[in-house]
Amino acid sequence: MKTPLILVVNDDGITAPGILALIEVVKKFGEVVVVAPDKPQSGMGHAVSLNTALRLNHWKKDGTNYYACSGTPVDCVKMGVSKLLKRKPDLIVSGINHGSNSSINIIYSGTMSAAIEGAMEGISSIGFSLCNHSIEADFTTAKIYVEKIIKDVLTQKYEGICLNVNIPNLSVDLIKGIKVCKQANGNWEEEFDERIDPNGKSYYWLTGKFVVYDKSEDTDEWALKNNYVSVVPVQHDFTNYSITDNIKHLEHA
Amino acid sequence: MKTPLILVVNDDGITAPGILALIEVVKKFGEVVVVAPDKPQSGMGHAVSLNTALRLNHWKKDGTNYYACSGTPVDCVKMGVSKLLKRKPDLIVSGINHGSNSSINIIYSGTMSAAIEGAMEGISSIGFSLCNHSIEADFTTAKIYVEKIIKDVLTQKYEGICLNVNIPNLSVDLIKGIKVCKQANGNWEEEFDERIDPNGKSYYWLTGKFVVYDKSEDTDEWALKNNYVSVVPVQHDFTNYSITDNIKHLEHA
Repeated sequence: MKTPLILVVNDDGITAPGILALIEVVKKFGEVVVVAPDKPQSGMGHAVSLNTALRLNHWKKDGTNYYACSGTPVDCVKMGVSKLLKRKPDLIVSGINHGSNSSINIIYSGTMSAAIEGAMEGISSIGFSLCNHSIEADFTTAKIYVEKIIKDVLTQKYEGICLNVNIPNLSVDLIKGIKVCKQANGNWEEEFDERIDPNGKSYYWLTGKFVVYDKSEDTDEWALKNNYVSVVPVQHDFTNYSITDNIKHLEHA
Repeated sequence: MKTPLILVVNDDGITAPGILALIEVVKKFGEVVVVAPDKPQSGMGHAVSLNTALRLNHWKKDGTNYYACSGTPVDCVKMGVSKLLKRKPDLIVSGINHGSNSSINIIYSGTMSAAIEGAMEGISSIGFSLCNHSIEADFTTAKIYVEKIIKDVLTQKYEGICLNVNIPNLSVDLIKGIKVCKQANGNWEEEFDERIDPNGKSYYWLTGKFVVYDKSEDTDEWALKNNYVSVVPVQHDFTNYSITDNIKHLEHA
């Protein structure tokens, strides 16, 4: 079997402990190339750089090529796939994110947007997130599950699968296992923290709390609250087929 | 009936001809508040400002409140709904975008991400795009269809509906009507245009061409190519229910 070629990306930046933990695991499976943002890019969603040129900073360490890119996580995937890799990679892994990307947070997440971009290009892609925002988070448990899931995806050879994997912030003996789930229905209830600068002008910080509306037991939020690793299979067709008939009359407007 | 309260947003910036055309139409239907980026924000996807504080610049013109926001299109929706509007709006309209947002372009589009954010907050939201990128695009035809569709959505009182509306760049007599469609399967085949700066260092511009893989006649791409206005109903559950069973064995990994 050909050695798998694996592209590693994230949104916390190329020096974040989470991506270093991911690289450590993924090197067991094949040839690794890292293309990741040169600074934190959390909350960048599926943004791409249309009006800004991109810069790359390249180095090699322990046999692995690292490219720090000035763009967004999605830019990094495009740059890796279309410019830097010698062939289409067998797998793209994104993360390990410092903080959960469960429920609707997938849409804001640079980590998950990078994985979705990979799947859009027909490459199996997995986004990993640990439910701990701290820069000092412990990735010991996460690495065990990252390894299990990568091993499965490489073995099964799914075509262009995309997974959103979230891992509770617990020691491994407290994890009950893996649950395949759906995305929970939830949302942010936002507030803007208004402050006054030294010149007397207002500025605003986005703050808020995340609220889960979904009480069912088949969601990622339920799995995480019950000490399971959540795995949500992801797609990128936004069509709401369920209401097509309700708006069909628009064709006669 | 209470006068509808309508929030207007876009991604081309608060001075773009497209948003001015949209404001002109939407003022016929109710009280309008404009919260839009203070500079072009194309390709920003669902990005939010987590590490940057936001600034607002406010003015009133012909009875309408305008807020130019330093953030992304999604920031503008959050700012409008959570901070600036006196009550939950009855409708959010985004655009009119200079350029198509059909097929998978919905995921990169700040215009459509703003509409999706509105729907995530339970507010009916419509993104409008004209298939012409030019700053000098003619919005005459677009305004006719924008008015028809807004009228329908306000009359029918759908709850939190989200529509992706794309309008061919044609005179009104050449438009065949409206088609309710699904999102076409397509993707960008990217290249990076490498250039050398005066200091001898490389920089890269993202370029590429959009390729439609989908040949069926029920897609937005088909509708637009056949001179119809395309209307795709939109949802934001990314779960790929069709493959849940195929990966269920991961629960025993």
